[in-house]
Amino acid sequence: MPTVPHLEQHFTGSARVRDVVIGMSDGLTVPFALAAGLSGAVESTRIVVTAGLAEVAAGAIAMGLGGYLAARGDREHYDSELAREQREVVDKIDFEVAEVEEIFGRYGVARAAVAPVIAAFRARPDAWVRFMMRFELGLEEPDPGAALRSALTIALSYIAGGLIPLSPYFFSATARDALGASVGVTLAALLIFGYVKGRFTGTRPIRSGLQTVLIGGLAAAAAFLLARLLS
Amino acid sequence: MPTVPHLEQHFTGSARVRDVVIGMSDGLTVPFALAAGLSGAVESTRIVVTAGLAEVAAGAIAMGLGGYLAARGDREHYDSELAREQREVVDKIDFEVAEVEEIFGRYGVARAAVAPVIAAFRARPDAWVRFMMRFELGLEEPDPGAALRSALTIALSYIAGGLIPLSPYFFSATARDALGASVGVTLAALLIFGYVKGRFTGTRPIRSGLQTVLIGGLAAAAAFLLARLLS
Repeated sequence: MPTVPHLEQHFTGSARVRDVVIGMSDGLTVPFALAAGLSGAVESTRIVVTAGLAEVAAGAIAMGLGGYLAARGDREHYDSELAREQREVVDKIDFEVAEVEEIFGRYGVARAAVAPVIAAFRARPDAWVRFMMRFELGLEEPDPGAALRSALTIALSYIAGGLIPLSPYFFSATARDALGASVGVTLAALLIFGYVKGRFTGTRPIRSGLQTVLIGGLAAAAAFLLARLLS
Repeated sequence: MPTVPHLEQHFTGSARVRDVVIGMSDGLTVPFALAAGLSGAVESTRIVVTAGLAEVAAGAIAMGLGGYLAARGDREHYDSELAREQREVVDKIDFEVAEVEEIFGRYGVARAAVAPVIAAFRARPDAWVRFMMRFELGLEEPDPGAALRSALTIALSYIAGGLIPLSPYFFSATARDALGASVGVTLAALLIFGYVKGRFTGTRPIRSGLQTVLIGGLAAAAAFLLARLLS
């Protein structure tokens, strides 16, 4: 008999892994494509490095702060719904009973069959509230402190990912020289990253690796061609 | 008595709105910050426009294709879990009964009180499978065609958002001249966008607008300062 909800098992890996994936997949892809695109238009590695680092800083802040505010919003949403349900199981008990009957009715369970369940809920209003949060509203209680941890993890993963495609530009004389090395290390990093991500998320790892390479490669190719056309 | 799950009401607005928000919030922020950053380092609007459009192309592809593959992955995950549950309500019926009892046990409902519900499920295995998908696994059936629609919506919203901060650079002689106009139109767009997003997602609209401006402004300021330091 399972002792934890399957839900937990299916989002294999923790929220931390998910945040690393969010930050790193964008961090590897967008600065890579930007650097490749600029290499099609300018000679100077200085401009590519400046644009690339500016993009990494902006992306890390936008994603990290965006993630922080989204997580804080989830917390506020959860708390306000919790307060509403806590009032409803006291003040609007007939309404809550009707909601439980309606939930089960969608699965072919008649009102008479639900009556013993409702009797159990009436005896434990706290459990009833938890049931409604999870099964009526589909809300899980957010982890306190999750917002800040999530923001930092996403931002640092974006920076770590973004420095990989930019690194060859630090050491090359011209942007065109650096481009080949950047493509090489980044496609390799995308393949490894996609493979590992596949293992954590339950997708077939090799297919996940190839998909990740495809996204990064197409984005970089489009940026390169567009920049060539413009210059 | 509600006739649709509350879940639907709480994700106010449709999946389409959510995709527009995902695409446009990044589209307004990152190209804006990149253009601002480059304006701190180079004179030529041509380089800013080239880098900005390359970033918009790369970001739209990365986000759109990433969203497409994520949605397709959700579909495959749903189908494989559905097939497993369909087998289990036939082959491992005692195990499924124990799972239902365990789910309710977490909410203080005794096995005896669950028995009539289980009897109803035994009479309708299809409803039982739907119940387990939703209440054991927390999975909703993905909308067919959602993956492609979602990808296109995210990508086009990213492009629409990204062209706003870049537009002044098309018409100005120097990057520094364009910067002020870009900051003005983008902060106004971020405020309006955040306000509208707040109305759709149930956050207080004015606070949502100010938060969106804060994210975009901080990202752009960081990119600008970093690029100044490097040049």
